[in-house]
Amino acid sequence: MASQTSRLDMRFILAQAMAKEAGKVALDYFNRRETLVIETKRDLQDVVSVADREVENLIRARVAEANPHDGFLGEEYGLMEGTSGYTWVVDPIDGTSPFVNGMPNWCVSIAVLHGGRPVIGVIYAPCFNELYAAASGKGATLDGKALSLDPARTIHNSVTGIGANNYVTPAFVGKMVEDLLEAGGNFIRNGSGALMLAYVAAGRLVGYYEPYMHAWDCMAGFCLIEESGGYYHPFDVSGDNLTKGAPVLATGPGAKDDLIKIAGL
Amino acid sequence: MASQTSRLDMRFILAQAMAKEAGKVALDYFNRRETLVIETKRDLQDVVSVADREVENLIRARVAEANPHDGFLGEEYGLMEGTSGYTWVVDPIDGTSPFVNGMPNWCVSIAVLHGGRPVIGVIYAPCFNELYAAASGKGATLDGKALSLDPARTIHNSVTGIGANNYVTPAFVGKMVEDLLEAGGNFIRNGSGALMLAYVAAGRLVGYYEPYMHAWDCMAGFCLIEESGGYYHPFDVSGDNLTKGAPVLATGPGAKDDLIKIAGL
Repeated sequence: MASQTSRLDMRFILAQAMAKEAGKVALDYFNRRETLVIETKRDLQDVVSVADREVENLIRARVAEANPHDGFLGEEYGLMEGTSGYTWVVDPIDGTSPFVNGMPNWCVSIAVLHGGRPVIGVIYAPCFNELYAAASGKGATLDGKALSLDPARTIHNSVTGIGANNYVTPAFVGKMVEDLLEAGGNFIRNGSGALMLAYVAAGRLVGYYEPYMHAWDCMAGFCLIEESGGYYHPFDVSGDNLTKGAPVLATGPGAKDDLIKIAGL
Repeated sequence: MASQTSRLDMRFILAQAMAKEAGKVALDYFNRRETLVIETKRDLQDVVSVADREVENLIRARVAEANPHDGFLGEEYGLMEGTSGYTWVVDPIDGTSPFVNGMPNWCVSIAVLHGGRPVIGVIYAPCFNELYAAASGKGATLDGKALSLDPARTIHNSVTGIGANNYVTPAFVGKMVEDLLEAGGNFIRNGSGALMLAYVAAGRLVGYYEPYMHAWDCMAGFCLIEESGGYYHPFDVSGDNLTKGAPVLATGPGAKDDLIKIAGL
C-alpha cells in the first residue's frame, strides 16, 4: 500500500493535470459562447451551465478512474461519499458571472480534503493561463514559482478582495464595504471568490472576505493560503457541514487582526 | 488644409498606434516590477510612478511631433493648452493599484476632445492585448470587431461596475453598494475605472458608476460608450473644469434609468 506521502503526491499531480485539462474545456466554451448561443438557440446562462456540468463530469470521471474510493463534492452534482479518507471538492467554473459576461476572471478550483482539512489546493485561471498549486507541507506555487506572503503588507498598503451573494442583505454588504474603507482599507471584487483567494496566496490581495461561501468555492484557496504563510478562519467540513455555507476570511499575516475585526469573526 | 474628417482620422490612427506602443512599454515595467524594485532599491509605488511618467512622456512626444498645436492633458504632468481645437486627454496607466499588486486589470487610456466633447476614445489593456477604439460617427470596436449594446441588458440580468476614491466618504460608498444591491443589481470593481468603462462599451458590464473621477480617467470610455449605443452623464470639460473631477455614470440603454436613480444624478 502506498505511503501517506505518495498518496498525497499522486493526487496532487492528478489535481494539477485535471485543472489544466478542465480549464481548456471551459475556455473553449468561453471563447465560443456567442456562437453557441446562436447555434443552440439558448441563452448565455444555459451555455455556462452546460460548460459547468461538462467540466465537473470530466473531473469526476478522472478522479473515479484514478481513485475509485475517494469521495467527491462538486457544485453541480453534489456529494458522493467515499471510503478512502480523501474527498475531492470541486468548483468546475468559479465566477460564472464574469464567464457569462465575457470577462476573464473565472477559474477551475480543485481541493482534496483529508482529516477534516484541505490538503491539496489547485486553482487554474484559463484566460491568464495561471496555475496556483499547493499541498500540505509542500508549499504553494504560481506557475511553479514559490509563494511566500510578506508580513509587511497590511490593509492600508494593499488591496482586500470582497464578495457577497443573496445569502446576506444589501445593508450588510454596504456596511462591510463602509467598515473596510473606514479602517483605511481598499477593496476589489473581480467576480470569482476562488480566484481572489488564489490572489491572496500570491500576495496580489492582502485578504479576502465573503460573509457566506460554500466549500467548493474556498477549500482550494485555503490550502494555497496556508501553504504561502497566510491564515484562514476555521471552516467546518465535518458531516453535513461540508455541504453548507459559512463565512470565509483568509488573509496574509499583516492583515489578519484588522480583517478579523472588520468581519466580526 | 486637411478636412475635419481627415484631421479626426489622422488622430484616430495615431491614438491607436500610441496606445499599443505605450502599453508595451508599461507591460515591460509590469513584468519586470519585482526585479526593478531590487535593482533600483525603490518600492513598487516608485516603479509604477516611473512607468507612468515614461509612458505619458512617450505619448506627449508623439502627439507634439504629429500635431504640435494640439492641447494635452495627462494625469502626471497636467495641462498644456493648444490652439488647434483638439486636446488629448491621457491616463498613461489607469489602475495603478492592480499594476502595483500584480493584477492584470490596468490600461492605457487616450482620448481626444474637440468642441467640448470626446471625439476619439482608445483604451488598450496590455495584459489582455485588447484594444478598444472609437471615434465620433465611426462606431466603437474591440480588436476590430464592432461593438453595439443590447437594450435587453439591465442591472438585473447583468453586472454593474463601481469605483470610489478618497474624495467620497466610506459611508457614501457603502450606501451606493447597498442601493445598487437593493435595486436588484450586482457589482464588480476591478481596480481600473477606464477599463470598466471599456467593458461597458463592450457589453461586459451594463454600467459604471463612480462618484468622482477626473477627465483622464473617463473621456476615452465616454467616446467608446457613446459610439457603442450607450449613455453617459454630462461631464463639463469647459475651461478650468477640464482639470477638476466630477461624478461619472455611463450605461447601456437598458440600465440608464435605474443607474441614474441609484446615483442620484
